[in-house]
Amino acid sequence: MTHVNIMAGGPQACLPAAWEQLPGVWIGVDRGTLRLVRAGIHPELAVGDFDSLTLEELRLVRGHVQKLQQVPSEKDDTDTELAVKAALQASSSGDVTLVGGTGGRLDHFLSNLFLPLQPRFLADVERLHLFDVQNWVDYYSPGEHEIKPLPGYRYVAVVNLTPVADLTIVGAKYPLKPWRAGYPYAWASNEFLGKQPFTVSWTTGQVAIIYSRDRRGQKLDN
Amino acid sequence: MTHVNIMAGGPQACLPAAWEQLPGVWIGVDRGTLRLVRAGIHPELAVGDFDSLTLEELRLVRGHVQKLQQVPSEKDDTDTELAVKAALQASSSGDVTLVGGTGGRLDHFLSNLFLPLQPRFLADVERLHLFDVQNWVDYYSPGEHEIKPLPGYRYVAVVNLTPVADLTIVGAKYPLKPWRAGYPYAWASNEFLGKQPFTVSWTTGQVAIIYSRDRRGQKLDN
Repeated sequence: MTHVNIMAGGPQACLPAAWEQLPGVWIGVDRGTLRLVRAGIHPELAVGDFDSLTLEELRLVRGHVQKLQQVPSEKDDTDTELAVKAALQASSSGDVTLVGGTGGRLDHFLSNLFLPLQPRFLADVERLHLFDVQNWVDYYSPGEHEIKPLPGYRYVAVVNLTPVADLTIVGAKYPLKPWRAGYPYAWASNEFLGKQPFTVSWTTGQVAIIYSRDRRGQKLDN
Repeated sequence: MTHVNIMAGGPQACLPAAWEQLPGVWIGVDRGTLRLVRAGIHPELAVGDFDSLTLEELRLVRGHVQKLQQVPSEKDDTDTELAVKAALQASSSGDVTLVGGTGGRLDHFLSNLFLPLQPRFLADVERLHLFDVQNWVDYYSPGEHEIKPLPGYRYVAVVNLTPVADLTIVGAKYPLKPWRAGYPYAWASNEFLGKQPFTVSWTTGQVAIIYSRDRRGQKLDN
């Protein structure tokens, strides 16, 4: 199974450290493709209208992309949705990680955050991930899930992105007795007890598990 | 009616331009208070455990805050929730704008984004706003709403943060016929037709209207 990484056009400052070294193949979303090419990565596919690229930049992209799918700017799917569809359909593709999908415009970010919840992607929800400089996001469907620590991340949040029933956390610093709500809510700033996994379960709804860490030099940043 | 601005501790780079000049009074959330004091603003209230402040910083904060509410770090409400509660309860308070609440840790950001959807805040949802360097967020309850252009923002998104029924957009660049979904979805990148307002209506669910703009020098940023 091959990991597929998708590079969108979010702010440079929000990219994960050393993203160039992520294992797997790459798909570029519109202007994100240029970022890949300039980092010496030749994406398998690039999707977008590429309107914001100069002719010279577009030439550079064309020369270093295996397949370029130029689409109209006004269409039903976003470029990122098209990239995710392609990633999931590729033969032998495994997990799909979206980078460059956070920060900047909130409408773009929320479109990315909520993308896995669309009915057409739901069967693959556990293969989809969001990754940036301070956060790693996993998505889960109802059931009982063992959540393991992720080295380098101090915090872990349980976030129901849809209405949820019987949401329960067992074995974390802050346990949660069965809880239900008709609105999304972030159970933020939870932590692992040492290196022990904890258990999250629920019966209806979609939940994201968000690993996060403080910024380097956060005290100075303010 | 007095505007109340709340300063949380999100990354400096995500703060709106010239935030120091926002009209109204200020409430500081934990380390965000220090940012206010250093900008010459004396907040009416500061809420937090202030664990991350040095003794010297805490002394500075104490000397420039009208009321300091020091709370335990492990409690039911987040510091931001306590600040919003206080802001809504203040006599003659009008709209409440949260700044410093985006960027950085996604669990913190989502906690802030979803805060107005909690049943206890829902009656005041239309008084609550999120504001950062590229985005302005309004929240609305079901009904028919006239959405006006906001100078300086090219894009406007209709984002149902909860399941929604009969969501309809009339008079914008991309209209929407009555739509329903059990999951959140960002109708991103819509635009106004000239300076004309457009109409959004729906019968159940909570919807955010997100005004956004591209970054300055976005083409170079990648």
